Amino acid sequence: MRVFNFNGGPAALPLPVLREVQEEFLDWHGTGMSIVENSHRAKEVAAMATEAQNLLLELLGLSSEQWAVAFCQGGASLQFAMVPLNFAPQGTVCDYIDTGLWSSKAFQEAKICGSGARFAASSKDADYTFIPSQYDYSEKPQYVYLTSNNTVRGTQWPSFPTGAPGPLVADVSSEFLSRPLDLTDFGLIFAGAQKNVAPAGLTIAVIRRSFAITGQTGLPHMLDYRTFIDNDSMYNTPPVFAIYVAGLVFKWLKNTVGGLKAMEAKNKAKAALLYSAIDNSGGFYSGTAQVGSRSPMNVTFRLSDSSLEKPFQEEAKKEGLVGLGGHRSVGGLRASLYNALDLDAVEALTGFMAEFKRKKG
Amino acid sequence: MRVFNFNGGPAALPLPVLREVQEEFLDWHGTGMSIVENSHRAKEVAAMATEAQNLLLELLGLSSEQWAVAFCQGGASLQFAMVPLNFAPQGTVCDYIDTGLWSSKAFQEAKICGSGARFAASSKDADYTFIPSQYDYSEKPQYVYLTSNNTVRGTQWPSFPTGAPGPLVADVSSEFLSRPLDLTDFGLIFAGAQKNVAPAGLTIAVIRRSFAITGQTGLPHMLDYRTFIDNDSMYNTPPVFAIYVAGLVFKWLKNTVGGLKAMEAKNKAKAALLYSAIDNSGGFYSGTAQVGSRSPMNVTFRLSDSSLEKPFQEEAKKEGLVGLGGHRSVGGLRASLYNALDLDAVEALTGFMAEFKRKKG
Repeated sequence: MRVFNFNGGPAALPLPVLREVQEEFLDWHGTGMSIVENSHRAKEVAAMATEAQNLLLELLGLSSEQWAVAFCQGGASLQFAMVPLNFAPQGTVCDYIDTGLWSSKAFQEAKICGSGARFAASSKDADYTFIPSQYDYSEKPQYVYLTSNNTVRGTQWPSFPTGAPGPLVADVSSEFLSRPLDLTDFGLIFAGAQKNVAPAGLTIAVIRRSFAITGQTGLPHMLDYRTFIDNDSMYNTPPVFAIYVAGLVFKWLKNTVGGLKAMEAKNKAKAALLYSAIDNSGGFYSGTAQVGSRSPMNVTFRLSDSSLEKPFQEEAKKEGLVGLGGHRSVGGLRASLYNALDLDAVEALTGFMAEFKRKKG
Repeated sequence: MRVFNFNGGPAALPLPVLREVQEEFLDWHGTGMSIVENSHRAKEVAAMATEAQNLLLELLGLSSEQWAVAFCQGGASLQFAMVPLNFAPQGTVCDYIDTGLWSSKAFQEAKICGSGARFAASSKDADYTFIPSQYDYSEKPQYVYLTSNNTVRGTQWPSFPTGAPGPLVADVSSEFLSRPLDLTDFGLIFAGAQKNVAPAGLTIAVIRRSFAITGQTGLPHMLDYRTFIDNDSMYNTPPVFAIYVAGLVFKWLKNTVGGLKAMEAKNKAKAALLYSAIDNSGGFYSGTAQVGSRSPMNVTFRLSDSSLEKPFQEEAKKEGLVGLGGHRSVGGLRASLYNALDLDAVEALTGFMAEFKRKKG
């Protein structure tokens, strides 16, 4: 029996996509081989990867003349190094906005890479419960870096800063393709695929071409965004299986869901239901993020009696509701409501929450 | 219908493994989720990854006290940079043995990384048709680097140099787990998984612990082998699906095949049959590698009338024999006989070759 999967990532993927993968796993598109046995240089595979790139740009509303897609590996953690290596060489300055664990890690990697990284804002003193709206920018930063959705703390940027003194760069891992994004002021976004898009092992960077060409030269090939752009992500063998699943998810988003606006509406409805259950629990449950900064993707909350948080997870699991533990760095509870999770999962969760409160409250 | 898959990589995987993946794809081990939807931090997944590591060391005959396994990403191409970044900082020297495209690329990345890399031997002047047996070593190289099996040129080291003045480091991508390896003189081996082990997107490094601790510090986390070793390859989200398939392949190697010695015997029998068909064709077919350096994994050959090489591939494909083109950098023909390919595939190929010769010879 399939459970309701609230994992923070790797996370739920659309069931119709998983079924399609399963069905054609031994013989992909009449090639007589599994997708994982096909050469990445085979015509059919290259066409599949190109189609995935094009679909992604279409979903994002971006033109391929201005933007490029790079299918990378190594997760956001490798992007944390690639971004400064490519765009903030020694002797330059780059600004980071610190909204939690992942932006702190990105900042540390920039320091390791020798970049002149500094914080332009931080909500650390408030336990990262909100998204800062005031920024102390450098005069000429190479870029301004932010984490658009904070999986650990359950916060999300409602909109992005305007008028920053450099191009914006964002880690959008845990909200990628959950809503339309206005990328007017962006140079680059990237996302680990394992939240909303595909199995772990694929990291997607979407790069403005005019920004990409300003990057450093002389980097190891696999750390240079241009290697990916110039070779259509086929400089070496890419993670074909994850790209294939991503392509199916892009199709599902376009054809079944109806695009990112429709996806956003669904996600807002799911989040509204859950936040409402939390807010109307008379304090039995409480959200950890400030209201204006709440993420629709990762809903973090606590029980007023924190000793009930473990039993909450255990009893929820018995009801087929799994993955409700908070990130190991902060504890508490978290329900991740990624794209593949339907409203019925949230209804099941809020039903369980009411029942749990009735029994223990 | 499944074809006979002679791809150079990504390549054939064992059919029983693919069937198992397919069967449990929607519900992995009773978790109610696909393996690709499970958290990498879930107990069951962590146990699966640990079991895969242990099985790998067992197959290789290595002790976990002396050796560590790192599940990396980025392919051999990223290893080409990681090896010198970790072990050959500026101001030191490292020796490379040049046996073709991949060792040349590794050498170039070492140069990019600022290492004092030099060639201790090369078979370039002989079109990389053999494995050099004389080496002009540096006095104190940080390591001696070699490519143990050359996918493009169809050569393989029959045994490894003894008495080198530094630890050996090898790219074993296209022969990994095809035969027992004597790693007495090695510090590190690595392999892209997409030839003999798993879907593309996983790169396995096996590192001697006493060598690992000599590595540079202050590297970006995802480029530092110790990040992988110290965190059991779970510093960030690893490519779970590929690790899972690799684990199933390790089990298949151990339980169905009977270990690496048994695997080697099967591989030798397959290669002997094909080389014999080539050598006994009266010159209609000819092998490109010198006899003492021939690879049992990648059998490269030509037709005396090279204009027949394209029809050869086209007619073979009609008979369900696919992936027989040589690497795009050299042309010609190549049959990759990785572990998952059974003798019946080679019998079908040699049968086809005889028939093709009868018609065109």
